[in-house]
This record gives sequence, C-alpha cells and structure tokens, in this order.
Amino acid sequence: MDDPLAGFPVAIEIPVQWGDMDAFRHVNNTVYIRWFESSRVVYTRKVGLWDLLESERVGPILASTRCDYRRPLTYPDTVRVGSRVARIGRTSLTMEHRVVGLASNEIAAEGTAVLVLFDYNKSEPCPIPDPIRRRIGELEGHRDLS
Amino acid sequence: MDDPLAGFPVAIEIPVQWGDMDAFRHVNNTVYIRWFESSRVVYTRKVGLWDLLESERVGPILASTRCDYRRPLTYPDTVRVGSRVARIGRTSLTMEHRVVGLASNEIAAEGTAVLVLFDYNKSEPCPIPDPIRRRIGELEGHRDLS
Amino acid sequence: MDDPLAGFPVAIEIPVQWGDMDAFRHVNNTVYIRWFESSRVVYTRKVGLWDLLESERVGPILASTRCDYRRPLTYPDTVRVGSRVARIGRTSLTMEHRVVGLASNEIAAEGTAVLVLFDYNKSEPCPIPDPIRRRIGELEGHRDLS
Amino acid sequence: MDDPLAGFPVAIEIPVQWGDMDAFRHVNNTVYIRWFESSRVVYTRKVGLWDLLESERVGPILASTRCDYRRPLTYPDTVRVGSRVARIGRTSLTMEHRVVGLASNEIAAEGTAVLVLFDYNKSEPCPIPDPIRRRIGELEGHRDLS
Repeated sequence: MDDPLAGFPVAIEIPVQWGDMDAFRHVNNTVYIRWFESSRVVYTRKVGLWDLLESERVGPILASTRCDYRRPLTYPDTVRVGSRVARIGRTSLTMEHRVVGLASNEIAAEGTAVLVLFDYNKSEPCPIPDPIRRRIGELEGHRDLS
Repeated sequence: MDDPLAGFPVAIEIPVQWGDMDAFRHVNNTVYIRWFESSRVVYTRKVGLWDLLESERVGPILASTRCDYRRPLTYPDTVRVGSRVARIGRTSLTMEHRVVGLASNEIAAEGTAVLVLFDYNKSEPCPIPDPIRRRIGELEGHRDLS
Repeated sequence: MDDPLAGFPVAIEIPVQWGDMDAFRHVNNTVYIRWFESSRVVYTRKVGLWDLLESERVGPILASTRCDYRRPLTYPDTVRVGSRVARIGRTSLTMEHRVVGLASNEIAAEGTAVLVLFDYNKSEPCPIPDPIRRRIGELEGHRDLS
Repeated sequence: MDDPLAGFPVAIEIPVQWGDMDAFRHVNNTVYIRWFESSRVVYTRKVGLWDLLESERVGPILASTRCDYRRPLTYPDTVRVGSRVARIGRTSLTMEHRVVGLASNEIAAEGTAVLVLFDYNKSEPCPIPDPIRRRIGELEGHRDLS
C-alpha cells in the first residue's frame, strides 16, 4: 500500500486526544492547525531556522496558513503529520502539510503555510541564508524549489 | 476614522486571554482560527443553518479555511471578529473573516472559510435552501453573491 | 437578587465560544482552568506582581490549582470569572476563583490557585513585598488574610 | 531506577507540542489538565464506564479536579501520564494522575479527579455497578479502595 506521506521528509506522530473533539464529535478544525504547527516546528528546527533566533534575532514568522479538510477524525486514533518545503523565495518559503489518520491510513487534511524569515534587529524580512537553503535542499532530495 | 469591519454584517467581540499567547509572546496562530469559528457560528446560526441540523439532520461542514496574519496581537487587548458571505454556490458558501484589534483598530488577520451544507441522511452535499439564501441576501444587503 | 460574585474584587467577562464545548456538548473542564488563569492574571497585574517580573526577575509561579464543577455550561452564554485573595503567606498566596454563567446567574464552578513568588536570580521563593501586600489588602477591604 | 509511574495501571504517552508552551516558555497549566483527561478517558473506557453511556444513558461526570505542579516542562519532550483509582464510593470514585517528563524521568505534576456516575434518565447520581467495580479491582491489584 502506498504511504500517503511519501515525499514528506519530516513527519511526527501525535495521539488524538478525546478533548480534541468538539460538539460535533469530530476533531475540531483548530486542532489540525496546531498539528501543522507542531510538524512545522520540527522541520524548521531541523534545518537550522531556530538557531538563528537566539544567536542573531532572526526567525521565521507565519504569514499565512490554509487547511483543506478531507475526512473527519475521531477519538481514538493517532495522526501522522508530514511537512515538506514546496518553494523557497528570497525571504520566504512555502511548506505543505498533510495529516494522515493511522486507523484509515487516508489523508484527513492537507494544507500550506507561508513562512517569512524576519530580522528583529532591522524589523524587516531577511534573505534565507545559504546554509539553510542547502539543508532544505538535502532534505527535499534536491528537487527544484524555485 | 473608517471602521475596518465596515461591510461585515456579523461581528463578535472577544477579549484576548493571556494564555492565548505562545512562547513568542504573540497570540498563537491557532487562536485566530478559533475566533473565525466563533464568529462564523454566530453568522450561520443567525441565517438558520443550525436549525436544519436538529430538524432535518442537514448542517454545515467546514471544507477549508485560510488565514493571512497581518499584525501580531498581544495581551491585553480585545478583538472584533467579523464575518460575511462572499459567495453562495449550489451546496456551498464562502465566508470571509476579519480580525481587528481594539488597541490599534487595525486588521490583525483576514481569512476565508468554505462551508458545505451536508445531508447526514443521504451522506451527500445538500442544496442550500431558498429561505437561507434569502436571509443571507438580506444580511449582505442584496449584493451579488454568485 | 444577590450577586454570586459579591466579595470578589476582580471579575472579568468572557463569552463562551462554541468550540469550548467538547463531545459531551458542555464546556470542557480545561476551559474553566483557562478562565481562572485569565482572571488571576488581571488580579496579579493589578496589585503589581507582574511589574517585578521585568524589573527584578521576580514573578508568580502557579504551584497548584483546583476546580469544583457545579453546573455544566453550554454555548451560547457569557461567563463572569471572579478572583480574590483568601490568604497571604510569607512567599505564597492562595486565590479563590468563581465562574458564574450570565444566562443562569448561578455559580458554574469554584476553585483555588496557590501562587508562589519566585526569584529567578536566586532560583528560590521570594517574600511577597510590603507594597504588594498593601495593594492586596486595599482590594480585599482589609480582611484578615493570614 | 524506580519508575515514577509504578502503581499506575494505565499510562499514556503524549509528545509535548511547541504550542503547549505559553509566554513564560513553559507548558501552560491548562495543558496538564487536558493530559489528565486524556489518561482518565483511557482508564474509564477500559473498565467499561463508557459502554454504559450509549446503552443506558449512564456516564461519568467530572465533579472536581486538582493539580500540583512540581517541575516546569518545556518543548521538546514527551510526557507519560498515569491514572489509578484511589477510592471508590457508592456513586463516585477518586482518581489520581501523575505526569512524568521523559527527558528527566521526574514527576512534573500530580493531581486528582473526582468522577460521579450519573444517570441521565433520572438526572441523579447512580451506584457504580459491580462489574465495573470488579474490573477496577483487577486493574488495581485488589488494593483496598474503600
């Protein structure tokens, strides 16, 4: 069977908590956005984007997020949440996220996040440094990300 | 001064809670999605979309959501969260949401949500009934929503 | 009619959000703890406990919290959440919280929180300064808090 | 090394999410209460307390919760959250919860929850059935729970 997270170099696993469900008895839509964030943090730490924050006061800011809900999730289940970089610009990058429920092994939600690298010293966007571009390139198998 | 929520027929007011902030000391991105939902629930209840749920097992499902983050928010503040319908299709509608911080009176975030009306008896999307179209039309000042 | 928050010098008002409800269609138990926190933050800021944090690296830490759930809450409603200091020790204080639903004007939950004033420079608890004791005394109507 | 969860027949494992931290850069106090709930749900389902809900409209209600915070937690980490029954009364039971951070293997928080079994048909507390008492007794190694 194909892995719905094939092509996602970073994936985390999180148990659905009973309290993640809302009054419709499905996982609430905000929980997916939290999962996206959790997966994105693992990715951005892995490529060194968080090291800059403490050393140089340069760090990623979330500019935009989007989520398409494909199938409802219910407790009990566990989700895998994948992240990959789809595109790198001069000062920003676009990530793609995908949520897969273990019970069904089907895609429960997909979405994107646009991150801007921000220089808190100058209060302006900051070009993404070459070492970070290289690490992302390695993770992404040197796909074209322009 | 222009009201940043002019043209939004429904708006709610919610105090920012200290715990809405994350480790970056700004309101966390998931909180905006919760605010969108809270404002959307007021709108959809107002036009009768929730009455169908109990009487006919027909109700709105969130298919997609998007948020563009414009300016960070911090505690203490209060937000106003507006909702309007931008478009009505046969079985779905697109809402627009806008978050305004009272401290600045500026737009903190904007986004959209696509809702699909779903018939739980037939397990399929359901045409939006005329009485609901009419109530939305009245709220939206009979703008063209096609 | 008696005010269920009589004797609580600080009270905040927060709308119940639809998403605060869980799969039992009542406000989830964790939401009350968040409301306690929100009310407590208003109180502790008001008496100067947060000013010390930035100027002297001394601030309150939550040591313990308790909540008794009296009556379930549902959306739509608005809650008032009161805070008062019941007791001040050398380095700690005990607060009492009360949640009242506007729809019923009845107590929905009551609880306590123990705060310890902590000196991050010395990594040890810190005696509560006299000016803060005085401000709490004034707020509490000079009741005996020992 | 002693297991800090020895004596807890049910334990779950949950990754700390970055967004669980608040502006103090520690896991927020409400998150522990959510973890308690998640562990408690596993326990109560295991002994059959949720089966009654659908078949007989009898189910557990949270009457009270308490948490003592021992050591702050930060991202990244994973927690184990244990549950055991300390006491069974006629219509209620007292659970104990314990949170252990994997990074330190030390207790981060401890607490209790009082559950009341409620009959939604009669709108009154309901005696805990013998089969459920037996299953709890087996899980708890036939300790005295009176």
